[in-house]
Amino acid sequence: MTKERAYFEALALKEHGKLCPDHVPEVYHFDRTMSLIGMRYLEPPHIILRKGLIAGIKYPLLAEHMSEFMAKTLFYTSLLYRTTTEHKRNVAEFCGNVELCRLTEQVVFSDPYKVSKFNHWTSPYLDRDAEAVREDNTLKLEVAGLKSMFCERAQALIHGDLHTGSVMVTPNSTQVIDPEFAFYGPMGFDIGAFVGNLILAFFAQDGHAAEGNDRKEYKEWILRTIEETWTLFHQKFTALWHQHKDGSGEAYLPEIYNKPELQQLVQEKFMKDLFHDTLGFGAAKMIRRIVGVAHVEDFESIKDDSKRATCERQALELAKLLLKERRNFQAITEVVSAIRKLHA
Amino acid sequence: MTKERAYFEALALKEHGKLCPDHVPEVYHFDRTMSLIGMRYLEPPHIILRKGLIAGIKYPLLAEHMSEFMAKTLFYTSLLYRTTTEHKRNVAEFCGNVELCRLTEQVVFSDPYKVSKFNHWTSPYLDRDAEAVREDNTLKLEVAGLKSMFCERAQALIHGDLHTGSVMVTPNSTQVIDPEFAFYGPMGFDIGAFVGNLILAFFAQDGHAAEGNDRKEYKEWILRTIEETWTLFHQKFTALWHQHKDGSGEAYLPEIYNKPELQQLVQEKFMKDLFHDTLGFGAAKMIRRIVGVAHVEDFESIKDDSKRATCERQALELAKLLLKERRNFQAITEVVSAIRKLHA
Repeated sequence: MTKERAYFEALALKEHGKLCPDHVPEVYHFDRTMSLIGMRYLEPPHIILRKGLIAGIKYPLLAEHMSEFMAKTLFYTSLLYRTTTEHKRNVAEFCGNVELCRLTEQVVFSDPYKVSKFNHWTSPYLDRDAEAVREDNTLKLEVAGLKSMFCERAQALIHGDLHTGSVMVTPNSTQVIDPEFAFYGPMGFDIGAFVGNLILAFFAQDGHAAEGNDRKEYKEWILRTIEETWTLFHQKFTALWHQHKDGSGEAYLPEIYNKPELQQLVQEKFMKDLFHDTLGFGAAKMIRRIVGVAHVEDFESIKDDSKRATCERQALELAKLLLKERRNFQAITEVVSAIRKLHA
Repeated sequence: MTKERAYFEALALKEHGKLCPDHVPEVYHFDRTMSLIGMRYLEPPHIILRKGLIAGIKYPLLAEHMSEFMAKTLFYTSLLYRTTTEHKRNVAEFCGNVELCRLTEQVVFSDPYKVSKFNHWTSPYLDRDAEAVREDNTLKLEVAGLKSMFCERAQALIHGDLHTGSVMVTPNSTQVIDPEFAFYGPMGFDIGAFVGNLILAFFAQDGHAAEGNDRKEYKEWILRTIEETWTLFHQKFTALWHQHKDGSGEAYLPEIYNKPELQQLVQEKFMKDLFHDTLGFGAAKMIRRIVGVAHVEDFESIKDDSKRATCERQALELAKLLLKERRNFQAITEVVSAIRKLHA
């Protein structure tokens, strides 16, 4: 880890910790010269969420907690809550975290769409699938739009790497860690990362099914968690918006937008766009985990290549569908239906 | 002028001057402590373009020159040409110009849509029109989207105030001045400002018509200039893109996007979005000049209130149409047709 990484990780941990202390480990001390972060030890039985999902453990509060974390950190660092003066000052500071942004640009938005020595996939099973990704013009057009949004749109302080490996859990506790990729970017990148990785976890379940445990019920729990994550996020985020509608946020000035009918109109537009961004970024994050450089343990831990390839192909097909057709999805229930359909 | 203003003006003049020396006055010296800019004196017969448009003077090279200025300054400061490392460094620096961004946010995206003591209009003629703007939910929804883009999207180093009062001209020379509002924002804000102000100049012509000079031919020249500005901008911008398609710009990596068919697809998408941004921002800039705080001499110099109101109302109606329906416009010729229709 470079020194710069530690600096932005500490900065984001502190900022997110202030906004959502229940789900971010406390930073006790940061020493910039030494790049030393002294922070809360997440004691056992906390484990990495991804490992819990592979083991088939249910976390009944996961959607509640993660939607809370995302709603608070994204809302309070956006222009829905802040003045443009505060916002620009913060944006400028996090522009310094360029090296890790560049890494994301490469591994999420570039590598999977070209021949790259870093790419790999379950070969030979997915050879044609990987090639199809590289040759799909519509997919590449959509990914270019998302990449531009990632590089240009300073919507909120995002975690920047909010997959299921950046969350530690017990049945009662959910802690978001490792925000070294944090910067001011599009909100949908965080929500998409989390939801996309839940979808990967879902499609991997058949590879983890064993005699006497077909994971059928667990898969239903994951689907419910996906649905609840967005639904609760939507509720919490719009509740914060409502709570602060007369505040100092400068995106929608009270004097102009605080009429119920208009308020509803702008919120619906905002949340619809955010939903589509979420699906787009989520899909891009899924694709890169199947045909890009860094894969996920959810699939990698499936020993049988053929079985793994079948799981991965379903996830890849869903991701392509979401990336290309996301604007036709109106609700998270439709996404869950699409997952079921592809999995059948 | 505050000291900060002078700093960003000098910075932008130098940056734009490097990219398009033919149309930006040279800065000889800048002293930050003294906030002193030593720059080229734009000698007579240079006059402010707006005054030339009011006087009915044709500038046959205007579209050629302005499209060149916009294509070069916007292309070379975007991710079509730059790496994200360079881009983020520049974005961070210009985040410091927040006070003038806030002024734009207020006068362009807020004041016209609420009761504000700073607003004025040709009363009583436009009283109902101004009220209609304040009560138009669709208009306010669209303006909110543009404001977010203005505040969040660091697409290129824009001039930030590119109306016809920021351009000095002779029949052979076009010089862009006063970039103290410069920052990294959406490209369409600059193109829209220029085109929107040409449209205002068009609708003001009937107020300047006199015995023996009905301005009919001049109006045709303005319409041609509007059309040529976008057409030439489109040509020059995509030519720069083509010229640098194997360069270091990171929005569309050569390894992924340099197949002719895909290249065309992404360019068409990019230029279509930019066209719609241009119409949206152009419309917002027109509206604020009719019912907001700062008006334009094009209309203000029309002595007869009733006559002025008629001109202004036509411009306002066009602006509302563009702002609300811009995504249905496919070409600049359709915009010119809409202008003619509203003027008839």
